[in-house]
Amino acid sequence: MIYRIGLAGCGTVGRGLVALLGEKREYLEKKYGFSFSLNLVTDFIKGTVASADGLNPREIIENLDRSGGLRSMKEALEDTRLADLLRRTPVDILCDATPTNYETGQPSLGILQTAIASGASAVTCSKGGVGLDLAGLKKLAADKGVKVRYESSVLSGTPLLNLAQGPLAGCLIEKALGIVNGTTNYILTMMEGGADYADSLREAQRLGYAETDPTGDVEGFDAAVKVCIMAQEFFGCKLSLSEIDREGITRVSPSDIKKAREEGKRVKLIAGVERHKDTARGYVKPTAIDLTHPLASVSGPTNAVCLTTDNLGDVTVIGPGAGARETAQGLLSDILDIAARNA
Amino acid sequence: MIYRIGLAGCGTVGRGLVALLGEKREYLEKKYGFSFSLNLVTDFIKGTVASADGLNPREIIENLDRSGGLRSMKEALEDTRLADLLRRTPVDILCDATPTNYETGQPSLGILQTAIASGASAVTCSKGGVGLDLAGLKKLAADKGVKVRYESSVLSGTPLLNLAQGPLAGCLIEKALGIVNGTTNYILTMMEGGADYADSLREAQRLGYAETDPTGDVEGFDAAVKVCIMAQEFFGCKLSLSEIDREGITRVSPSDIKKAREEGKRVKLIAGVERHKDTARGYVKPTAIDLTHPLASVSGPTNAVCLTTDNLGDVTVIGPGAGARETAQGLLSDILDIAARNA
Repeated sequence: MIYRIGLAGCGTVGRGLVALLGEKREYLEKKYGFSFSLNLVTDFIKGTVASADGLNPREIIENLDRSGGLRSMKEALEDTRLADLLRRTPVDILCDATPTNYETGQPSLGILQTAIASGASAVTCSKGGVGLDLAGLKKLAADKGVKVRYESSVLSGTPLLNLAQGPLAGCLIEKALGIVNGTTNYILTMMEGGADYADSLREAQRLGYAETDPTGDVEGFDAAVKVCIMAQEFFGCKLSLSEIDREGITRVSPSDIKKAREEGKRVKLIAGVERHKDTARGYVKPTAIDLTHPLASVSGPTNAVCLTTDNLGDVTVIGPGAGARETAQGLLSDILDIAARNA
Repeated sequence: MIYRIGLAGCGTVGRGLVALLGEKREYLEKKYGFSFSLNLVTDFIKGTVASADGLNPREIIENLDRSGGLRSMKEALEDTRLADLLRRTPVDILCDATPTNYETGQPSLGILQTAIASGASAVTCSKGGVGLDLAGLKKLAADKGVKVRYESSVLSGTPLLNLAQGPLAGCLIEKALGIVNGTTNYILTMMEGGADYADSLREAQRLGYAETDPTGDVEGFDAAVKVCIMAQEFFGCKLSLSEIDREGITRVSPSDIKKAREEGKRVKLIAGVERHKDTARGYVKPTAIDLTHPLASVSGPTNAVCLTTDNLGDVTVIGPGAGARETAQGLLSDILDIAARNA
């Protein structure tokens, strides 16, 4: 089978996926028996290209790099609604790489729903839609006999959700503790080295880790959405953003960090979720953790999650938490998993 | 489909698997749609029981705990060859939990070959067979249209091999560096605390981490076999045990550890394998690693592997490296994966 792939959202991550697919075509065929054609790329700003015969990933990259958009390509279409695009150019797997609005989950939620309604499996790296209503999306997908996957929505492509679903199958997860936001971990690592909060934030902004308005990261919203995803994924519990006990890093002072060090500890912004009676309890909180804990040595923009399980005790995974290629890798892993389970 | 499961080797890990299957039956049905009957358990010392209608896991555990064996059960059979047992009581998945001989790979290699020849998928936690000839076993399995899986042969049930095969699909692995032997890591952690080698070894023996003859662990043979498995799994390269550049921990002195500490490092027995031209280079070697490296804080009997990949950079997984339930979990993960890909 040749999988017809579509992509909604062609910013840095979408571009990363197109590049990865182009670069790895032969490897994917040889190693995984996975063949694909990229039939649709649509981006609100950059335009839309579609071809039932398959687009050339290299040409897409060249156009993006040259003109910043897709409108000069011969396969360019007038902008139109995704549902219409998918009717004209159906795909088997639609990848969503649009930016996230935490509150509404849009445009991700609508894109995933539209893709599934068209009969496609849906893969996303956006936190918004799955954070808001993973159960609803899963039900829609089950009704249509397709899949929805979202590895990159937490820890980018570092395996966590697919790890729990696949290689940890049979384990009951009791608790997850993580460093799931690279920006705040970078700032705390700088502060550990002696810098104050304002300077550390400025340096993170200079390096592109933090946005001009850093609220989403430093107030813990980004981490809290990831807690919602983990709560749904690990415990089947739907928590809303307002139910997460959330505290960011803006009030962490050099003296907190010094005090922790004197106690053999290190301050980390911990995103936690655990079973609590019939539901789950989630929080985001600066926490002084013991230096012997595997999360303590996770520094800079690196992310990590420690899962406490019944069969294995603690299992920790450490890896990148952001990046175009890293996030695209998570989308690719989801695509390959859908294909493998379909074979 | 109801999967018919067989088990060869009913020591602590085999017993752990029987217990886990008994305990988790409803959970596995509900969460994974996985139904099974345990039809065959055979152990060279403890005897053989078989039933096409399914054995009761709880009764097996009771008999093992009461009499140390299976011969008093009503389903007990005279000892006979595995091939004959599988002809009389065919299974869909045979689990091998026998102890390993590194040199010959037996009895594991023969058990896996016999199981596959009978038309069963084969799952093992023994290093011997897969360390010696993974490619041969995979070819046999492919010819028969069945699977061979071996997650627990490295890091017990902590996901590594299934992690690379599943959630990391699409990544090229360039290098693996690991702490893959709990006994030596426990000893080095004790020495880090000030004890000398002889005392640390005695304490490891007292706690059951080290065997009376500790050669296999402390001279690095156990780790070297795991390097052979990783070389085959990650790079498709067959390395023999003698091709691994191997040095154990018997010559590590308190002054080596002190010197490392003064340099901001920690001595670990590192098992490494990396691409080298068209083949792979493997080694086991006490190495002073920087305290900022994720492997540096892995202490006691805990294991870890850091994979360097093209798409994600470094991804590290940390978890238990031994234990009955932990190893049985790896077998269970393999069983569930075979079933999921078969669905």
